[in-house]
Amino acid sequence: MCFRMEESEATVQEQRAPIKIMIAVSKSTLKGYPHPSISSSQAFDWTLQKLIPQSCREDYQLLLLHIQVPDEDGLDDMDSIYATANDFKDMKQKEKIRGLHLLKEFVNKCNLAQVPCKCWIKEGAVKEEICKEVKRVHPDLLVVGSRGLSSIQRMFIGTVSEHCVKHVDIPVLVIKRRPEDAPDDPSDD
Amino acid sequence: MCFRMEESEATVQEQRAPIKIMIAVSKSTLKGYPHPSISSSQAFDWTLQKLIPQSCREDYQLLLLHIQVPDEDGLDDMDSIYATANDFKDMKQKEKIRGLHLLKEFVNKCNLAQVPCKCWIKEGAVKEEICKEVKRVHPDLLVVGSRGLSSIQRMFIGTVSEHCVKHVDIPVLVIKRRPEDAPDDPSDD
Repeated sequence: MCFRMEESEATVQEQRAPIKIMIAVSKSTLKGYPHPSISSSQAFDWTLQKLIPQSCREDYQLLLLHIQVPDEDGLDDMDSIYATANDFKDMKQKEKIRGLHLLKEFVNKCNLAQVPCKCWIKEGAVKEEICKEVKRVHPDLLVVGSRGLSSIQRMFIGTVSEHCVKHVDIPVLVIKRRPEDAPDDPSDD
Repeated sequence: MCFRMEESEATVQEQRAPIKIMIAVSKSTLKGYPHPSISSSQAFDWTLQKLIPQSCREDYQLLLLHIQVPDEDGLDDMDSIYATANDFKDMKQKEKIRGLHLLKEFVNKCNLAQVPCKCWIKEGAVKEEICKEVKRVHPDLLVVGSRGLSSIQRMFIGTVSEHCVKHVDIPVLVIKRRPEDAPDDPSDD
């Protein structure tokens, strides 16, 4: 239980709104769903362990956002070419379910830690959708994992964390993947 | 008082070390010492108000770092040309005292908020010194203010926040200056 004020003030002041921390999470490029990327996983764990004191958990709310890039031609998931609208609809639904399984892992950790949370999926280009959701939801803080790419690598691979730091107005916490956990190809995650 | 564990575990587990948050603070380019830059001031206030719950203040430690770029030719502070080594030594001392007055403002705020803090000054190039201090001190988190410059402006003006995000290994929290508080020349702060 967190006491933020003298008891005599309790009737005068309103309960402070929880601090809303939005965490953008992505899937593993190596293992696919439902596994989270290394940087998402480490960013989430750090936030839970270092940013949210155990005795003040109810003062925070974690907002877990997962962006799915639409598989527009629908060919990734096909054994053969389907022709009906329903087939595409089914594939979208399957993709969404996979995304929810990814989020479920994070939600379970929040529940274990007794930290209130929400989660949802958005479809679109990752960088842009994160920025849009920040504008829509108005969290207090945005947390993004980072692969920690070198300057040369960044020239070829756009980074989500860099884009968010530049384009959102709220504070952004960039948590770099531990170098010893980087895959052979550092652009993987 | 923050209770982090059941009383029966208290004897078994060690007291958790405080979370060390390093905040890089700079002087105002418009008003000079002892006034802090707008972005430093807002980054500090946000950290104190949003990141450190009042009931868990003793679980945190703020490390306030101010970097002074050496005035090498000593001409900024002169009415006439001095020739002795002592004159240069005096000027360095005066500069250091001004820096301490800047830090004093932040320390006073920490004391009022009852958040443990330390502060110190380092001399050198800002970006590099911050990174060196992070490596030396090993805080849990680095907080930097940002002027929120556009891409074009960034091409001409190196930004400290961008450099820190790229080069330090620990999590970096970038807190942008509020657009409505930006000076006429946005590169000022």
